[in-house]
Amino acid sequence: VAAHITARLYLFWSVKLITLTTDFGTRDWFVGTMKGVMLGIQPRAAIVDIAHEIPPGDIRAGAFALAASFAYFPKGTIHVAVVDPGVGGERKAIAVQTANYSFVGPDNGVLSWALAREEIKAIRALENKTYFLSPISRTFHGRDIFAPVAAHLSSGVPISKFGPALQNFARLPWPEPRRTGGRVQGEIIYFDRFGNAVTNIRVHDLPSSARKPTRIRMKGRSLPIGEFYQAVAPGRALALNGSSGLLEISVNGGSAAEILKLTIGDQLTVEPR
Amino acid sequence: VAAHITARLYLFWSVKLITLTTDFGTRDWFVGTMKGVMLGIQPRAAIVDIAHEIPPGDIRAGAFALAASFAYFPKGTIHVAVVDPGVGGERKAIAVQTANYSFVGPDNGVLSWALAREEIKAIRALENKTYFLSPISRTFHGRDIFAPVAAHLSSGVPISKFGPALQNFARLPWPEPRRTGGRVQGEIIYFDRFGNAVTNIRVHDLPSSARKPTRIRMKGRSLPIGEFYQAVAPGRALALNGSSGLLEISVNGGSAAEILKLTIGDQLTVEPR
Amino acid sequence: VAAHITARLYLFWSVKLITLTTDFGTRDWFVGTMKGVMLGIQPRAAIVDIAHEIPPGDIRAGAFALAASFAYFPKGTIHVAVVDPGVGGERKAIAVQTANYSFVGPDNGVLSWALAREEIKAIRALENKTYFLSPISRTFHGRDIFAPVAAHLSSGVPISKFGPALQNFARLPWPEPRRTGGRVQGEIIYFDRFGNAVTNIRVHDLPSSARKPTRIRMKGRSLPIGEFYQAVAPGRALALNGSSGLLEISVNGGSAAEILKLTIGDQLTVEPR
Repeated sequence: VAAHITARLYLFWSVKLITLTTDFGTRDWFVGTMKGVMLGIQPRAAIVDIAHEIPPGDIRAGAFALAASFAYFPKGTIHVAVVDPGVGGERKAIAVQTANYSFVGPDNGVLSWALAREEIKAIRALENKTYFLSPISRTFHGRDIFAPVAAHLSSGVPISKFGPALQNFARLPWPEPRRTGGRVQGEIIYFDRFGNAVTNIRVHDLPSSARKPTRIRMKGRSLPIGEFYQAVAPGRALALNGSSGLLEISVNGGSAAEILKLTIGDQLTVEPR
Repeated sequence: VAAHITARLYLFWSVKLITLTTDFGTRDWFVGTMKGVMLGIQPRAAIVDIAHEIPPGDIRAGAFALAASFAYFPKGTIHVAVVDPGVGGERKAIAVQTANYSFVGPDNGVLSWALAREEIKAIRALENKTYFLSPISRTFHGRDIFAPVAAHLSSGVPISKFGPALQNFARLPWPEPRRTGGRVQGEIIYFDRFGNAVTNIRVHDLPSSARKPTRIRMKGRSLPIGEFYQAVAPGRALALNGSSGLLEISVNGGSAAEILKLTIGDQLTVEPR
Repeated sequence: VAAHITARLYLFWSVKLITLTTDFGTRDWFVGTMKGVMLGIQPRAAIVDIAHEIPPGDIRAGAFALAASFAYFPKGTIHVAVVDPGVGGERKAIAVQTANYSFVGPDNGVLSWALAREEIKAIRALENKTYFLSPISRTFHGRDIFAPVAAHLSSGVPISKFGPALQNFARLPWPEPRRTGGRVQGEIIYFDRFGNAVTNIRVHDLPSSARKPTRIRMKGRSLPIGEFYQAVAPGRALALNGSSGLLEISVNGGSAAEILKLTIGDQLTVEPR
């Protein structure tokens, strides 16, 4: 009896982890209502905010935030990402099952950089209104479609119930660095809160001779490589292996974005010795 | 035995949902301490943030955020709203039981637009210090009164324990649109993060001949009606049925507030064909 | 059987409360990934945000936010504070057990104002990589060291497992007010969201003759003492006993910081009658 009850309760009470990545901000009630909808369907959901201050409509920033964070969550987590300037129009809504996670969001590429690192098991268009709120607004599918679908998914509804199988999902192009001889040329793709400039150069992918390059050239400057911020004097710039595995340009104790006057798309070159 | 244990545990472990709507912001520790106080009393509380960036002291903005979101939470949820410029003074503190929810906050109108849509069952003044923190500050009743009362309420303390019955609660006037013939004249009451301008015109309340009006007149402009943002070209304005059921003025891919230079109180007219 | 199961389940399901105080902001994915890491180790963790908008690298502001809030959480809570400009360098990482709580963070003083009010039971350097993520970045120990250590601690790993005992931790000096005769001279140490200016003068520590002083002198002004904001007319300044037990300078319905043009370090004098 005891074992049986324990097993049943374990299933019943096991945590259902759902993450949210949106451009809804936190000054309005939008994210709160999504959580209310989800908890009404699945009261055991543990909902974690990844980011809500994605610039309005900036699909690439949302895709990057999700790709940088999703793999730090336990297997089985359901990741919901809603940066959705085309809400209410022709773009599809999808759920994607991978070897480790489920993903739910608009099919506009916001999921694609995370999905690129996962083994895809199933892709479904979200068309079964049984699992939507009713009525469905034309401007807030986060609340009316994505939140309830994620909650039903976390409650054990099989992904096949949500709509027809799709062969593919929309993919955002990743700005690949260019390689010429031993040189690697890349660009700035993101600034974080601290003003660190994240580049598209994956440190692991650098040719081994360039793993410890002596020079980063950027806007006429030559930057040293360091392992952490205080490897250079306060106020000085350096390049380092950022926490997402991408080369970053930083200033010890300051904002590289401001001090070096950087903008998205600025070019840099890694030159091995 | 199994059934009995399961039933007891279900009661014991069932989720106690509490929402928070405040003007405390998230840069200080205020909201965190409210959660600490609540979890100390009711460790099973699931606390959901609706909004904390209500402009300081803006009771109407708080009332609007709560009214737009409360009904998306499951029955039994306890909604706490604290926008409280009169804290420590003469205004009462109240708890209100409705057919579906409980509400806790200062009696200054911040609860009133949500309560207007609910069937009221009981109104109580919060006066029983047994359920307050001790000592009680004169400037942070969110932490010292509203948080512990909400937590005790979620733990099963009957609302009658908190203080004497009241006959009524403070109500904020809702700015009703004016109707002249088939025309409906309203105004802008809220801007969301995206710069969408929410009006006081409830789309459902428009006369049926006006449900599909051909013209919205606003500041000398004539705006088309659409169903979603991309119904017009990028950068163009439209009016649509917003996600709260109110007519909204939006710009596809932009901020209506900025592009149309709108402010709270700006007038608009819906003119049926 | 029933009692046994209930007891086992109680232990298994009891809430593991962890708080977070950081300068990571909420616009990036940093805090979300910390939560993912923790929930992967301890799925029952209830994680509460105290503050994430601590100004980048401002150890004192982080220490103050933690000191103002930690004691409102139930006994057994694990407090994680990460304001860590020296990340990846020589500063130690520590866990501290006190009579009531556990604290986890860099040993740079960010924990010290909270710890000053607690009875210290054990201090450990975090050196056992068994309890870290692997690989460990050099720039994000919040995710790679502090989050997993806090989660293991909440799962019952004894603090002695994380590394060698330390005799002490780094302490930030607290700016003590000066007393001359009956006068107490202090300074502004923090502004909250509302523009209230928190001083270093603990109201409880004022000489009893000064508990109800008639004058606060500040920048050539004489401010009245009140008990709550509306004790003075709208737009007028006053001094009051703030919610953290420290003397605050406030303006009824406005920002004292803006209206009185205050800055951190501004001096004030409490003069008893």
